[in-house]
Amino acid sequence: MSQSLFSQSTGMFIAETHTDAVTWFFSVDKFLVEGKTQFQQYQIVDMPTFGKTLFLDYKIQSSLLDEHVYHESMVHPAMVTHPNPKKVLVCGGGEGSTLWHALQHNTVESATMVDLDEELIDMVKIHMPEWHRGAFEDPRTTLVHQDARKWVEDHAGHGYDVILSDLPGPIEGGPALYLYTKEYFEHIANALSDDGVFVLQSGACNETYPYCFAAVHETLESLKEEFPYVRGYYGLVTTFQMPWGFIIASKKHDPMDLTPEQLQERLGGRGIKPRYTTPRFMPSMFVLPEYMYDAIKAHGRILTDAEPFLWEA
Amino acid sequence: MSQSLFSQSTGMFIAETHTDAVTWFFSVDKFLVEGKTQFQQYQIVDMPTFGKTLFLDYKIQSSLLDEHVYHESMVHPAMVTHPNPKKVLVCGGGEGSTLWHALQHNTVESATMVDLDEELIDMVKIHMPEWHRGAFEDPRTTLVHQDARKWVEDHAGHGYDVILSDLPGPIEGGPALYLYTKEYFEHIANALSDDGVFVLQSGACNETYPYCFAAVHETLESLKEEFPYVRGYYGLVTTFQMPWGFIIASKKHDPMDLTPEQLQERLGGRGIKPRYTTPRFMPSMFVLPEYMYDAIKAHGRILTDAEPFLWEA
Amino acid sequence: MSQSLFSQSTGMFIAETHTDAVTWFFSVDKFLVEGKTQFQQYQIVDMPTFGKTLFLDYKIQSSLLDEHVYHESMVHPAMVTHPNPKKVLVCGGGEGSTLWHALQHNTVESATMVDLDEELIDMVKIHMPEWHRGAFEDPRTTLVHQDARKWVEDHAGHGYDVILSDLPGPIEGGPALYLYTKEYFEHIANALSDDGVFVLQSGACNETYPYCFAAVHETLESLKEEFPYVRGYYGLVTTFQMPWGFIIASKKHDPMDLTPEQLQERLGGRGIKPRYTTPRFMPSMFVLPEYMYDAIKAHGRILTDAEPFLWEA
Amino acid sequence: MSQSLFSQSTGMFIAETHTDAVTWFFSVDKFLVEGKTQFQQYQIVDMPTFGKTLFLDYKIQSSLLDEHVYHESMVHPAMVTHPNPKKVLVCGGGEGSTLWHALQHNTVESATMVDLDEELIDMVKIHMPEWHRGAFEDPRTTLVHQDARKWVEDHAGHGYDVILSDLPGPIEGGPALYLYTKEYFEHIANALSDDGVFVLQSGACNETYPYCFAAVHETLESLKEEFPYVRGYYGLVTTFQMPWGFIIASKKHDPMDLTPEQLQERLGGRGIKPRYTTPRFMPSMFVLPEYMYDAIKAHGRILTDAEPFLWEA
Repeated sequence: MSQSLFSQSTGMFIAETHTDAVTWFFSVDKFLVEGKTQFQQYQIVDMPTFGKTLFLDYKIQSSLLDEHVYHESMVHPAMVTHPNPKKVLVCGGGEGSTLWHALQHNTVESATMVDLDEELIDMVKIHMPEWHRGAFEDPRTTLVHQDARKWVEDHAGHGYDVILSDLPGPIEGGPALYLYTKEYFEHIANALSDDGVFVLQSGACNETYPYCFAAVHETLESLKEEFPYVRGYYGLVTTFQMPWGFIIASKKHDPMDLTPEQLQERLGGRGIKPRYTTPRFMPSMFVLPEYMYDAIKAHGRILTDAEPFLWEA
Repeated sequence: MSQSLFSQSTGMFIAETHTDAVTWFFSVDKFLVEGKTQFQQYQIVDMPTFGKTLFLDYKIQSSLLDEHVYHESMVHPAMVTHPNPKKVLVCGGGEGSTLWHALQHNTVESATMVDLDEELIDMVKIHMPEWHRGAFEDPRTTLVHQDARKWVEDHAGHGYDVILSDLPGPIEGGPALYLYTKEYFEHIANALSDDGVFVLQSGACNETYPYCFAAVHETLESLKEEFPYVRGYYGLVTTFQMPWGFIIASKKHDPMDLTPEQLQERLGGRGIKPRYTTPRFMPSMFVLPEYMYDAIKAHGRILTDAEPFLWEA
Repeated sequence: MSQSLFSQSTGMFIAETHTDAVTWFFSVDKFLVEGKTQFQQYQIVDMPTFGKTLFLDYKIQSSLLDEHVYHESMVHPAMVTHPNPKKVLVCGGGEGSTLWHALQHNTVESATMVDLDEELIDMVKIHMPEWHRGAFEDPRTTLVHQDARKWVEDHAGHGYDVILSDLPGPIEGGPALYLYTKEYFEHIANALSDDGVFVLQSGACNETYPYCFAAVHETLESLKEEFPYVRGYYGLVTTFQMPWGFIIASKKHDPMDLTPEQLQERLGGRGIKPRYTTPRFMPSMFVLPEYMYDAIKAHGRILTDAEPFLWEA
Repeated sequence: MSQSLFSQSTGMFIAETHTDAVTWFFSVDKFLVEGKTQFQQYQIVDMPTFGKTLFLDYKIQSSLLDEHVYHESMVHPAMVTHPNPKKVLVCGGGEGSTLWHALQHNTVESATMVDLDEELIDMVKIHMPEWHRGAFEDPRTTLVHQDARKWVEDHAGHGYDVILSDLPGPIEGGPALYLYTKEYFEHIANALSDDGVFVLQSGACNETYPYCFAAVHETLESLKEEFPYVRGYYGLVTTFQMPWGFIIASKKHDPMDLTPEQLQERLGGRGIKPRYTTPRFMPSMFVLPEYMYDAIKAHGRILTDAEPFLWEA
């Protein structure tokens, strides 16, 4: 045991502070790639236990240990909720794994990925093949580098079946602040087909920082006409040191209606065999702990362009 | 945000290394009580976000933020599985919260708590009233300071309805190493009534350290005759930075048979209104992620007195 | 070695950031006393190697390992520069060790200590006897709790032989900001006797943060009429992780004129046998490294009440 | 100030534990080069304040902030002690700066550098030009990759004027353990000319870890016949967070005999204008603090091949 402790106290680390209660010092065996785009700092490193891992602005993003947990949770519940998703839009999704997982559904005819940070994607193409697995070369893929909000606004009436929002959190001054507001979600509704499904990553699903999840949930619930079904769920992302939250807003289909048998039929029929979001397990992901409902009551509020989310770190 | 970051980089911390991938630096506002018993070091501290928090041997144990998550998960699923628990044994359970939660079930006529570390309990009585809430003074309580294994061996045929094992992990050289073996579990079976229920905390339920959970699960499964029902489940303990695993081994009643309605009836009938293990939520706790089943297959083995658990840190 | 590394990666720490290059995590074996006065946070802790150690606002102040290095450096060079110091003023000096060292010079007839923080001194009296060694009870001692600047201004013409300034650094918003300005130093000159000696601790004497030392040195040099002799020197304070700077400003006597023989005669004659500032060693303390002269040239400026020091961290 | 603190708590670090009292977390702006030779791990990084910095086995070695302090201290006192150094041997000295500083003395006709780690030197040649400044290409230079002890043993009677030992510390199992023993120092004496000068870096010169310095000093003092003059001295290496010790062992010339005027004459005559070891400053470097003499008395012992140094961390 002394060996692993040695590597703890003497070695290389990336530190990330999560709320004011704890700072994580992640052990790094090797820095593989480092750089800075117009929008963010990035490091790809080799970590013990976690394997190859991506950091953006010194925040842990994804590791080979369980990127499938995050990305399956990001993609499959929304995709399977739609009976026949053909046109898919991915907002953000830098590593390419969200795109890849969406393309695994063989119903998909076109997948557009809109990610602002071209330099990052160019880096990802070269250095993160374990994530994108060639998805950028898929003939069904269109890759666009612009602000996702503008793209969504410009595609009203376009009839996307599923929109997957895999963006950074709504941090003040950050590029995604206005991609978590009621106005934006209305544009999303307009860009979706009549039975379209929207999902977005929504931040921590734990007791220390439920504020973002709560506010986004409340905001989507305020759009009852556009989205009769708003369903929060979570994935157990070991790399993040906490459960992670997602919210589906759906026009016609309720993800919680699907039985394990139906999930099996849809996923199997599309050639998909999940490692984490299995038909047996997926329904349990939608059973949120009470403290998330408490948080929605206590901290939920409607985010608008005028009053977007304020990170209460 | 600069303010909270200031308190991160300059201030007081307790550091805990979890596997070789990450060391957590927990921020401390104030050290309230510190000391050393014959068996362990302890600190009670005030933390931002977490509030009052107990550390044993510099490992985080329990905070006011969510001690109810851990202790409700520890107690209620097993207690509610038994239709009428009268005689309860708590092994370990230093903070007194496991005892208190058990006593909340108004069917209980006697609760015996066996914890080796008398000095720690004396300290807990004074400094952790938010945990034990007077449970040590309950007329139904008997508090014993001796090795739990010896107590269990000496009480064969005693007919406990529920045995709650809230012990430290099976660390080499630690006091609980032989309280996670097949032989010990056989003694447990002997000390239980014919429809008795046993539950034990079983370590991390995540992808970095599923080894302890996997081995304990396999060991209990090898006792099919004694325990036809072996059911793993987990609680989302924010303080631990990960989901935490528990395993129920039951002689006659299957915890997974209970519907939310039945759970509501039993808990409500006994005067209990859980914050975390609610009738709606509890069934989802028994739906383990695939990676835990994978871990049981890959790392499960039968722990014996001759070959107990070896912490593979 | 694994044992000591274990205590590093898992345990209690106080962290202090020094410039943006390095954060020190000091290992704590035990928190002995903690509290907060009107002016500052304090901790007294037991540290490996350093022993009992005082932190103020999470900055390391003094440890039993080498408090004598700091306090002998603070006191003896100035005291020995004066041929017959009778009236001494200590500004600040919370631990009482500066006072104690001054009182060791048996020429001293009265020593006044002016320290703003009464609560801290009350704590020191009880918990830091190894520092003050009863100095507060010495019949020659007068202890006053008020702002040192006001005291000095009110004692123009009082004829102190030596004034020892053992204050916190001139941090913006801190209580000592205006005790490092030209105007204040003029008041000091007025409060001193005609051959009086003034010394003040002046911050780090290294290549990462020579800015405070440089500015104070330049400021005192601008008072050539009051202080013909301005002499910087340093002590090797292991506890501070760096050499520490002091500056003597003297009206008539040049500390650098004293030979080891003269130092021996004066110190020995007054009954003092230093551990660190020995007659052999003391002259070398006044030989500053070139980089400090470079820093005075590059960063020296005259600090005034209108434009006090700005910490350029 | 919040900005620099931000970069402290969130960012990249290399951690190094120094004794059991303190772990330094060095902030890294960018990892420039990383790798592993047969003998050691290395990183070259950009640090705030320190600039480009080399780490070996996660221990800080040298930064652009003050590599001149270390290397001038390593080289000039010994070189200037010899009236006319022509043949120079450098043992170790990986960065090439020790070699470069020796070659600055225009009396030098040949300089041999013996460093075991060819891969490291190849890396240094490319990535650390600010250190070696082309010294490896100097026609007077011979670069050899083998064990320095063997080279010294094989060159008895070779008549080196100066031998500069810039090696890693005598760590158990490390490559330099037997380059700090009495037997080795006897071989050194044999390889030197009749008025030859030997100098070696000798570890920390502070109160927490004076053990290595003390033992090496005692060992060299036991060779009174070979080395009548054994002189310890230190340099203020900010990068190391402590004063660093060196010891000169000289056959005929006493480094402490040289006055500032003589130092000026010799250095100036050889075309050398030091930044740190100036004629004014150099004599003060030989005035060791009392605690080092105390340490020599308390911890000095004769290191031999049979009983080499044992790091008492």
